[in-house]
Parts: sequence; structure tokens; C-alpha cells
Amino acid sequence: MVNNGTKETGRVEAFSDGVFAIAITLLVLEIHVPPLVKGHNAAGTVWQQWPSFAGYAVSFLTILVMWMNHHTLFEMIHRIDRPFLFLNGILLMLITFINYPTALLAAYLQQPEGETFAALFYNGTFVAIALFFNILWFYASSNARLLSSSTSPSRVRSITIQYRLGPIAYLVAFLLAFVSAPASLITDLLIISFFCFTGIPGGRSARQRTGQEDQDQLSN
Amino acid sequence: MVNNGTKETGRVEAFSDGVFAIAITLLVLEIHVPPLVKGHNAAGTVWQQWPSFAGYAVSFLTILVMWMNHHTLFEMIHRIDRPFLFLNGILLMLITFINYPTALLAAYLQQPEGETFAALFYNGTFVAIALFFNILWFYASSNARLLSSSTSPSRVRSITIQYRLGPIAYLVAFLLAFVSAPASLITDLLIISFFCFTGIPGGRSARQRTGQEDQDQLSN
Amino acid sequence: MVNNGTKETGRVEAFSDGVFAIAITLLVLEIHVPPLVKGHNAAGTVWQQWPSFAGYAVSFLTILVMWMNHHTLFEMIHRIDRPFLFLNGILLMLITFINYPTALLAAYLQQPEGETFAALFYNGTFVAIALFFNILWFYASSNARLLSSSTSPSRVRSITIQYRLGPIAYLVAFLLAFVSAPASLITDLLIISFFCFTGIPGGRSARQRTGQEDQDQLSN
Amino acid sequence: MVNNGTKETGRVEAFSDGVFAIAITLLVLEIHVPPLVKGHNAAGTVWQQWPSFAGYAVSFLTILVMWMNHHTLFEMIHRIDRPFLFLNGILLMLITFINYPTALLAAYLQQPEGETFAALFYNGTFVAIALFFNILWFYASSNARLLSSSTSPSRVRSITIQYRLGPIAYLVAFLLAFVSAPASLITDLLIISFFCFTGIPGGRSARQRTGQEDQDQLSN
Repeated sequence: MVNNGTKETGRVEAFSDGVFAIAITLLVLEIHVPPLVKGHNAAGTVWQQWPSFAGYAVSFLTILVMWMNHHTLFEMIHRIDRPFLFLNGILLMLITFINYPTALLAAYLQQPEGETFAALFYNGTFVAIALFFNILWFYASSNARLLSSSTSPSRVRSITIQYRLGPIAYLVAFLLAFVSAPASLITDLLIISFFCFTGIPGGRSARQRTGQEDQDQLSN
Repeated sequence: MVNNGTKETGRVEAFSDGVFAIAITLLVLEIHVPPLVKGHNAAGTVWQQWPSFAGYAVSFLTILVMWMNHHTLFEMIHRIDRPFLFLNGILLMLITFINYPTALLAAYLQQPEGETFAALFYNGTFVAIALFFNILWFYASSNARLLSSSTSPSRVRSITIQYRLGPIAYLVAFLLAFVSAPASLITDLLIISFFCFTGIPGGRSARQRTGQEDQDQLSN
Repeated sequence: MVNNGTKETGRVEAFSDGVFAIAITLLVLEIHVPPLVKGHNAAGTVWQQWPSFAGYAVSFLTILVMWMNHHTLFEMIHRIDRPFLFLNGILLMLITFINYPTALLAAYLQQPEGETFAALFYNGTFVAIALFFNILWFYASSNARLLSSSTSPSRVRSITIQYRLGPIAYLVAFLLAFVSAPASLITDLLIISFFCFTGIPGGRSARQRTGQEDQDQLSN
Repeated sequence: MVNNGTKETGRVEAFSDGVFAIAITLLVLEIHVPPLVKGHNAAGTVWQQWPSFAGYAVSFLTILVMWMNHHTLFEMIHRIDRPFLFLNGILLMLITFINYPTALLAAYLQQPEGETFAALFYNGTFVAIALFFNILWFYASSNARLLSSSTSPSRVRSITIQYRLGPIAYLVAFLLAFVSAPASLITDLLIISFFCFTGIPGGRSARQRTGQEDQDQLSN
């Protein structure tokens, strides 16, 4: 039964990984080659597309870090049930959706009527995803049956605290969009750096601790 | 020989999972960014695309639940043969095809001449897929050689009964499309909820029963 | 060293499976939703796209059967080297390329100037792929080091004979394109049926024979 | 703890493989079917697209060889940490980005104003990727903790030397673009051949040496 659970978790994880990998790779399709007008400079024509390049980079790195966090979460999941599957599915739906606000940002960022709305929509999507990470984790962590037995309560608590930072950080980026769309994008990059290198559990020190726990279990 | 069979099943399952993951992620490419007309409101312009968003959500969730059911089916398959491979291939073809009726729905839902036809085509595709799930299961369940030995006859029977609900439910959504396209979409959401949370085997209680059987086998 | 070889083969196979799965799923993106002209019938507008649907179905089933054959081939491969990797890469390049002649067929099939050329290009691609399957198999089967030790010489011979049928069959479809494009498509469907159900090794009877061999090995 | 490390490495490798497989398969979507003008020859119309076909082939083979090298690198990685994950993510971002310069090349290669710029942009992307392979390898090889214990110092040194050739080779192709865009593409093909068949470690002879080392370890 243990193996069965692990096998099933592995499948959902592989499926989720596939969706993340496809979503992250499809982003490039939204950078369209601009038509080259006779007498115009090719470098200048491509350079005018900078919102497409900026959106591509920010969205790629955001999905990358979200994939890392998704893994951190699944490392602690031992079993899954239908509600968990469904919540995970909604999370994946929001992540694949990122493609659209990215394209919107690229198209509207150079138009005064659209700039603010596009940046709001873009960061609003991230707020929703960060909230859903909390919902998924809340469901998993309040069902002891789903958690791996090697997960210590202190680790659960530290993840809960850190996950809560996500929606708040993206809300700041969302509100900044009212002031300046580029400023909200730079905030997104700062959030990526933070979640990639500092806070999130499963990083270097946390993993070593887990390794320690694994060894403790083995020696018992 | 047992291992060989399981390995081969694993490959087909991994390939099918890949197709499901790609099909579900490609859906977003059909939501095109609308051109922003000078003097028009960006939020209003995006809002007019609601049929694209609705179609995206319904199709994503439908493919998600179909992926869950495909897994439930494969959990009971121990061996595959060429006819099974071929039937599974046709099923995958219909599932990847969902992208097209989704795009059709998004494009035609706001045009009186196209609304009904698009909703019929959309739900007709689902009727065909639900029928194919029955054909695939009929072929597998009537070939004892293909089924896992741990599958009990009562489980086979309960799946057969529940799979039969699929085409009937989607036929209702199909017929509702003649009356109202949005009503048929809401029915699709109800069908998703039903298959996701209540009826389908492999859910919480069914899995626990299987786990029980596994333990019984181990203790014998 | 044995494990290392098997692990490496597994990776190349997983990568190839991924490419097959993506290539087969992308096909649907080439069926574009036709604009609905006021006063025109929606069903009729969609029906005019039949070449897109026909091309989609034939290409999907062709890639599906080619994926099955690719597996049959890899079942006998125990080790890979750089030339094999490269030949396999070229084969994958041709398979992902199928998307383009399929789109060409859909676009040109209703235009008298383009119909023959599109069908020739389409079937020419299949001739090239069938030839490359032979090249890959010739390379693998003439390097005993690459073959699994459980592969009997008689099995190698029977695959060699059957693989040779591929280019000949697709050459017939190619030549038929000069007479009638639809006739060449129907021939493609016949070739799919043949390779899927009758001839190709690794089918039901062949697999049982392999199973037998596995058991023989185990009992020795 | 060893197993944990290997499992985590396997996941990142599977994710990376997925991104490579999708990036390589999406390339075909950038070859657009040209509209067939009445009275024009279909073959001639398609033939005018040769820059699309050339770009497709060169990019496909380049990503293929980069995938092979990525595997060679991961064969020596035993553990991963956050900075490695991040550097690998940036490398994947650059690889999925190849789609855009390929489309740019196809669109601009027949226009005198765009030809040189497109070839510079295309080869500049390859220079950046080759540099990032060096950065990733530098990080991994200077952290003994990340390397597999079976990796000999002489092997590390030989990879370091060979990886350094990458940016230099692509810089030559980049500079050639100022003289002739087609010449730089032919240089790209030569670089592919070199990295595929001759220099890179993990090829035939290197793998046999590793196999030897594995056997040594087993016999100790």
C-alpha cells in the first residue's frame, strides 16, 4: 500500500512536471518576428520588441521557481486523494494560463491605454497562483494521511510561514502596477530571486536537514 | 514475462500521459490577445474574450478528469496488445482534437449563426470520447489476459456501470446546446464535478479497497 | 556496465517518446478555425475544412504506428553509441517535420495547382522516414554490440524483411499522388492498418515468442 | 541520502529532457505554409521557403547535440543544489529561446537589410548558450559535493578543455555572419558534426573508459 501510494504520487508529479515543462517552453511562441519594413534597421525593429523579451524572461523564471516549489511540496506528499488531485489540477491550470497574460503584457506594454491593465492582469495571475499554493499546502498539511511520515511538524510550520509570503509579495507587485508597469516587473524579478535563493524550504540547508533525518531513520 | 508486460504498460501510460499533458497545456495558445483599439478600454477589450476563457477552463478541467479516468483504467491493465494500443491511440487522437472545438467555441459563441453549431460540435466531441472510453474498457475487460490479476469481478462491474454514464451525460449536454450554448457548458462543468468527486472508481474508497486487496495478497 | 547501457537506452527512448508525443499533439494546431461569414452556415464553413481533418487523422495515425515501430526497434537495442544517437535524431527530425507537409496538404488540397504537389511532398516525407527506419535498423542490427543478447538471428531477419516493405509501400502512395491526391491518402490509411495489425514484429504473436525466450533464459 | 540525491538529480534531468524535447519539436511550427497564388507553381512557392527549412535543420541538430552534451554533463552530477538548479534553468531558457532567432533567420534571410543581423542574432544566441554550458560546468566541477565520486580528475579536466571550444567555435560562426549569413550556417553544421562525432567526452571511447571504471569499482 505504501508502494502504491508512492507510485501514484510519482505519476501525478510526472504529469505536473510535464505541464510545467510545456508551459515554460511554449512561452517563446508568443515572441512574434516583426515584419521588416524596407529602409528600416533590423536591429531597431527587433529591439522595439523588448516588452516581449522582458515578459518572456520574467515568466520563464517565475514558472521555473514555481516548479521548484511544487517539487518541494511534493517531496513531503506521500499519498494523494481526489481533492488533492483536483486542487493540483487547478494550480496547473493557472500556471499554463501564464502564457496569456505574458502575451498581453508584450502587446500592451507600449500602449498608454493598456500598460497598467496588462501589468495588473499579469501580477493578478501570480497572486492567484501564490494563493493556490497556500490552499494546496493547507489541504495537504491538515491531512496527516497525505504527508510523508518523515516530515517533521517544525518543517510543516516553516513552510506554512514562507508560503504565506507569496501572495503578499505578489500583491505588492500588483499594487505597484498602478504606479509603473516596469517597476512591477522588476519586483517580480526580486520575488523570483528571493524564493529561489533564500527563503523557501528544500533549499540547501533544509535538504541537508532532511538528509540527516533520513539517516536517523535508517539507523533506528 | 510479468515484468516485460508491466514495463510495456508503463511505456504506453507514459506516452499517453505525455499526450494528455501537452494537449491540456496547448489549450492556452488558442486564447489570442485582442488588438487594443485607440480610445478603447483595455479591461473591456479583454473581457469581450470571455468565451475563450470559459472554453479554456471547461476544456482544461475536462481533459484533467479524463486523464484521471485514463489512469484508473490503466491501473487495472496488466498487459497490452496491438488492438488495445490502437484503441488507446484513437482515444488520444480524440483528446488532442479537443483543442479545435474549444477554439471553435471561443470564435463562434458570440455569433448567432455559429453559437449552436459550436456548442454541438464541442459536446459531440465529448460524447465520442466518452463512447471510446467504453470501447477501450469493453475490449480490456473482456480479455482477462489484459487485466491485472488483482482486479476483482465486482470492481470490473462497477466501472462498467459508471463508464456507461459518460456518453449519456455528455449526450444531455449535447442536446442542451440546441436550447442554449452557455447551459451546455455549465452542464459540462457539472459532469466534471460528478466524475471528479463522486462516482468514478479509483477514488478514495475504491483505492482503499484495492489497498486492502493488495494487503490480502501479500499476507497469503 | 549492463545497467549503464540499459539506463542510457532508457533515456534516449524517453526523449524519443517525448518528441513523438509532442509531434502527434501539435498536429491539431494546424487546423485553424475558419472565420464565420455573416449569412453563411457554420456547419458548412467547418465542413469545407475536410482536408485539414483528413490530414490530421492520417498524420496522427501514421505517427502513432511509427511510434509503435520505434518501440519495437528499441526493445531489441541494448546499448547505444554516438552514430546511433545521431541517426535516431535525424529520424526524430523527420517525424516532427510531418507537421509541415500535413499543413501544406490541408492548405493546397482544394487548389488544382497545389493538390498533386502537396500529396507528393506529404508521401515523400513518409518515404524518407521509412528509409531512415531501415538505415537505423541496418546500423543497429549490423553492430552486435548494440543488440540485446536475447534477440535471435531469426527475429532480426524477420524485422529486416518487414522494414523493407515500408519504403516500397509509401513509394506506391507517392506515385498514386500523381493520379489522385485522395487516393494516396487512402493508401496511407491502408499502410497504417497493415503495419498496425498484421506485419510488424513485436505484435501479439511475436511478443509471446519473446516472452517464451525470456522464460527460457530464466530457466537456464 | 545517496538515493535521495540521485532521485532529485533524476527529476531535474527529466524536466530538462522534457524542455529539450518540446523546444526541438516546436521548431516546425515556425515553418508557415505559404499562400498559393493562382497561376504560380506550388513547388516553386514552397522552395522559396528554403531559409525556413535550413534554419529548421540547423536548429534541430544544434538542440539535439546540446541535449547530448547536457546528458554527458548530468552523468557526472550526483547531487544538485539551488544555484545549480538556477544556472540549469537559465541554460534551458536560452535553449527554448532558440525558436525565436530561428524564426527571425527564416524571415530575414532573403532581405538584404535583415540578413546579417538575423545571422548575428542566431549565432549570438549559440555563443551565449556555449558560455552558459561552461558556467554550469565550472560551478559543478568546482563543487566536489555535486560530482559523482566515480568522476576522475582527468575526465573533469578533459571536459573543461573541450567545453571551452564551444564559445570559440560559435564566435567564429558569429563573426562569419558579417561576411556571409549562409557561410555562418554552414559553420554551425560543421560545429554540430564536430561535437557530435569527435571531441565531446561521453562518446564511444570515453563511455568505454567509464564502463571500465564501473567494473573496477564493482570488483573492489
